[in-house]
Amino acid sequence: MNLENKFPGKDISPDDILTKFPLAAKKSLNHKTKFMVAGVEFGGDTIPVFAGPNMVESQDLIIDIAKNVKASGAHFLRGGAFKPLTFPYRSPKYNETREQGLAWLADAKREVGIPIITEVMEEKYIDAVAEVSDILQIGTRNMQNFPFLTACARTGKPIMLKRHYGASLRDWLGAAEYILIEGNEKLILCERGISTPHTHRSTSRFLLDLQVIPAAQEITHLPVVVDPSHATFWRPWVAPMALAGIASGADGVMLEVHPDPQNAAVDPLQPIDYAEFQNLMKKMDNVAKASYSRNVLK
Amino acid sequence: MNLENKFPGKDISPDDILTKFPLAAKKSLNHKTKFMVAGVEFGGDTIPVFAGPNMVESQDLIIDIAKNVKASGAHFLRGGAFKPLTFPYRSPKYNETREQGLAWLADAKREVGIPIITEVMEEKYIDAVAEVSDILQIGTRNMQNFPFLTACARTGKPIMLKRHYGASLRDWLGAAEYILIEGNEKLILCERGISTPHTHRSTSRFLLDLQVIPAAQEITHLPVVVDPSHATFWRPWVAPMALAGIASGADGVMLEVHPDPQNAAVDPLQPIDYAEFQNLMKKMDNVAKASYSRNVLK
Amino acid sequence: MNLENKFPGKDISPDDILTKFPLAAKKSLNHKTKFMVAGVEFGGDTIPVFAGPNMVESQDLIIDIAKNVKASGAHFLRGGAFKPLTFPYRSPKYNETREQGLAWLADAKREVGIPIITEVMEEKYIDAVAEVSDILQIGTRNMQNFPFLTACARTGKPIMLKRHYGASLRDWLGAAEYILIEGNEKLILCERGISTPHTHRSTSRFLLDLQVIPAAQEITHLPVVVDPSHATFWRPWVAPMALAGIASGADGVMLEVHPDPQNAAVDPLQPIDYAEFQNLMKKMDNVAKASYSRNVLK
Amino acid sequence: MNLENKFPGKDISPDDILTKFPLAAKKSLNHKTKFMVAGVEFGGDTIPVFAGPNMVESQDLIIDIAKNVKASGAHFLRGGAFKPLTFPYRSPKYNETREQGLAWLADAKREVGIPIITEVMEEKYIDAVAEVSDILQIGTRNMQNFPFLTACARTGKPIMLKRHYGASLRDWLGAAEYILIEGNEKLILCERGISTPHTHRSTSRFLLDLQVIPAAQEITHLPVVVDPSHATFWRPWVAPMALAGIASGADGVMLEVHPDPQNAAVDPLQPIDYAEFQNLMKKMDNVAKASYSRNVLK
Repeated sequence: MNLENKFPGKDISPDDILTKFPLAAKKSLNHKTKFMVAGVEFGGDTIPVFAGPNMVESQDLIIDIAKNVKASGAHFLRGGAFKPLTFPYRSPKYNETREQGLAWLADAKREVGIPIITEVMEEKYIDAVAEVSDILQIGTRNMQNFPFLTACARTGKPIMLKRHYGASLRDWLGAAEYILIEGNEKLILCERGISTPHTHRSTSRFLLDLQVIPAAQEITHLPVVVDPSHATFWRPWVAPMALAGIASGADGVMLEVHPDPQNAAVDPLQPIDYAEFQNLMKKMDNVAKASYSRNVLK
Repeated sequence: MNLENKFPGKDISPDDILTKFPLAAKKSLNHKTKFMVAGVEFGGDTIPVFAGPNMVESQDLIIDIAKNVKASGAHFLRGGAFKPLTFPYRSPKYNETREQGLAWLADAKREVGIPIITEVMEEKYIDAVAEVSDILQIGTRNMQNFPFLTACARTGKPIMLKRHYGASLRDWLGAAEYILIEGNEKLILCERGISTPHTHRSTSRFLLDLQVIPAAQEITHLPVVVDPSHATFWRPWVAPMALAGIASGADGVMLEVHPDPQNAAVDPLQPIDYAEFQNLMKKMDNVAKASYSRNVLK
Repeated sequence: MNLENKFPGKDISPDDILTKFPLAAKKSLNHKTKFMVAGVEFGGDTIPVFAGPNMVESQDLIIDIAKNVKASGAHFLRGGAFKPLTFPYRSPKYNETREQGLAWLADAKREVGIPIITEVMEEKYIDAVAEVSDILQIGTRNMQNFPFLTACARTGKPIMLKRHYGASLRDWLGAAEYILIEGNEKLILCERGISTPHTHRSTSRFLLDLQVIPAAQEITHLPVVVDPSHATFWRPWVAPMALAGIASGADGVMLEVHPDPQNAAVDPLQPIDYAEFQNLMKKMDNVAKASYSRNVLK
Repeated sequence: MNLENKFPGKDISPDDILTKFPLAAKKSLNHKTKFMVAGVEFGGDTIPVFAGPNMVESQDLIIDIAKNVKASGAHFLRGGAFKPLTFPYRSPKYNETREQGLAWLADAKREVGIPIITEVMEEKYIDAVAEVSDILQIGTRNMQNFPFLTACARTGKPIMLKRHYGASLRDWLGAAEYILIEGNEKLILCERGISTPHTHRSTSRFLLDLQVIPAAQEITHLPVVVDPSHATFWRPWVAPMALAGIASGADGVMLEVHPDPQNAAVDPLQPIDYAEFQNLMKKMDNVAKASYSRNVLK
């Protein structure tokens, strides 16, 4: 049937590349976008690391974390102020954050001198987040919230677009195209785990898809980052998957770091502590040099 | 490790039912919500059918389809005016629709006397859609757009919440809870196909998950509908999967119907034509009677 | 790249049908294989039902079950004598079965007068199983054990080939072709649940794929059966999924039935009891008539 | 319901580790099996590499490949003589191989002095393969062919057990236990790609699951190897995924190498050529040192 040939399935066909995401697609084999955010280069020789807690729990804590991750070489402080939750019942701890969490991030930025990345979850908070955060992080559940993508893109701020845990690479690049078409070219993609039949532990939910790193980089010129903390949901697997992310060619790594992981306010099974982070930064730097002559620590 | 027991994985544990979606959860074994929308009962003996084209292509066509599906016993006219698209490049045909498509749906409703369901895709159009559509349809990609769920819920209009193609039943009921918590109890769930490793044909994208029908109905009192057209993406599978949906216990069926499927403006591989729809309505009625002493045709 | 066009992915392309499974493929639109096994027709108007326990626990029990399922209209007694287990540690109950279980099945067949289906698990037992069982059942884990498929096919006995829980329809029809190429045309396919990211309950493992029924029947002339007991692993979902299987067009249904499900020797969460089976047989018959003018009860 | 607690789902629960695979499970945190095969240590400081063609095409070719991969530092020559195929229709090239291919592998071993790994596909060939091959490779489709696992184990030869593309880690370790229970402790696990909803390119079939490396190593003391060639099915992704495999902690890497990949007799999209292999060996060695103070090149 002739009609059928016009409708590809869920993976990317050669024809897709030209017609579905012409802006996201590479123009030539070695086409790679480079841009600066708050003095940090993306797509270049140094691989930026985003580190910090899942949730901005208190002013003291976020400042302490900011100092520590900066001292170990992190390029950005990450921390959740506005957090989308699968269920509408949140502990009181969540209610304290949002605007307050954003203010604490601003305090950490000013006091410690480290750029910020935090998630923006809805249109009405875009301006507030854009004022503090150097990058607007769009979470997995908003990946195909197209009007929201457009609104974020129009701020002109750098954007990190996380892949939905059920989205194909084709879907993801389609979402990226919605941002690029607004003329916003400071776009970072972030793989954070997908739903598969197998996650190995009864508590885990996702599988970090590292095959998507070379797959995406074959097609797009945009930097692609990995987040092994959310993907694995399990502390002992974070370091090996971070190193594997670097070795697969990732252009950045996002990590959850907390001084007392077992007592983190949310998701205490996944953060690593300061000592493990410091050690991991050195190893990631070694692996970056060994595999691609890039670096993590300048 | 003790902490681990507090973090269930991706499927539903008994504890989840009480703590994550207390409003969506059944209060007793036979608890089932019933409500009326535009004179049509949900959760009762008659199983409503939503039929119409993927896209509202023209005034004449939508009126013709409305007349035909009504004559065959459909309870609602479905048709896309605002359509979320994976890629930002839409054919001119798409640009004609949106407000115009909505107006044509209103024309069909008035002229033919059939209630309407259509998707609302972004907050700024909620009022316009709510004025014409008897049910606000929330699409797969917006399932976890929580501020949008809240905004739709607050209109007080009946809502159909489609499952995201990558969402677990746990995620889906969590999203439902965001609507129920606003006091809006006229909520319909709709299964429309999930991403799995296998879709059988190279052109197909999704798998209609009928196991989720008894699974959802074991836990929730909300009506659960199936959409075999989007799930299968393939005309010859639509009728068997619609019948199977009824036999699995679904509380409604959504179908794409077009007078000339091969020339439908979008997704021409999936609609059925008038004759097949009329025949399928009779068969669905027979199966509903045979399996659950319910009916489709009153 | 030209080479790429020669290598389709995991789903079926039109070219596959002609070159990969010419014997399994339909020769014309309505091509459907019919054959008789022990007086029961496959592919015809009556939809055969296979019912019985997961494991042949004792002589008395299997005879009691045989009488009861026959009285309710079952066409075959199913029961496991040789059982493949994920782990090598089996309870003493498993060790009692195997040859002994096979002998008890033979007793039930003789005493009650009902044909038998049971799994054959390894080559050295093919003759012993073939002597008692009217159909050689090949389990999910052996679906791509090609030398074993060939050995079973060469007995000339009717064969039921269960789909592997990780196999595509393409893989499954490829395995069927290994049997057909030996000249054995009495081949029944059986869908018994696949691995997907979502199984809804924390105890469940598989998802019954009903979309594969019309998908397989579009391509192959072989009868296709469903097994909702193993797929759902959960009693309350068995009846709705059995009815849905019939409505999707399945050519047979396999069910676990036990007089005291909670005390079944293996997998006590999935069998239905005699009363539920009797009731389900009537409903399946009703649905078969309503949907395809076929029947379950003659 | 109490019964339900006894039946875990598809992932590994803490209780599983003790009861389902006591022999495969680690006895202590740092428990790691080490053993020698043909002078090569597994589980130690050096990470063995298995390299060679998908199919043993000719005597000349396999000897040429053996010389080249040995010169670049490969520890084992891999090559398919007996090959399980999804469909029974094989090109004449396949028929030439089998016993002949095995003899050519023996020639390469003798002439070049490199140990051999090749797949054994059915019981009747175990002795013939065991005579030539230093390791018996059990393919993905035979992972749960339990009588075959037992038969291979009883030869006392070292075994590589590939994960089925639809198997959970729980299934895989269960299969490993069938081998260990026979007293054969020279067992290597190999991850070679799983079925997921997303494989990125329309020609690809599998996704290399690197998260399973730390997951398996957290539970089992057995060495775990990765095969990025079969998983990705796409040459440009092989090197990054091989490096990522090393960085994730893998205890070995299996690679397809062919002097003229585009003209390889089977699967020409996946092998790398001699020059790329030589370069990759050096990079893998660098990454092994950088991440775990291990090495690939001694």
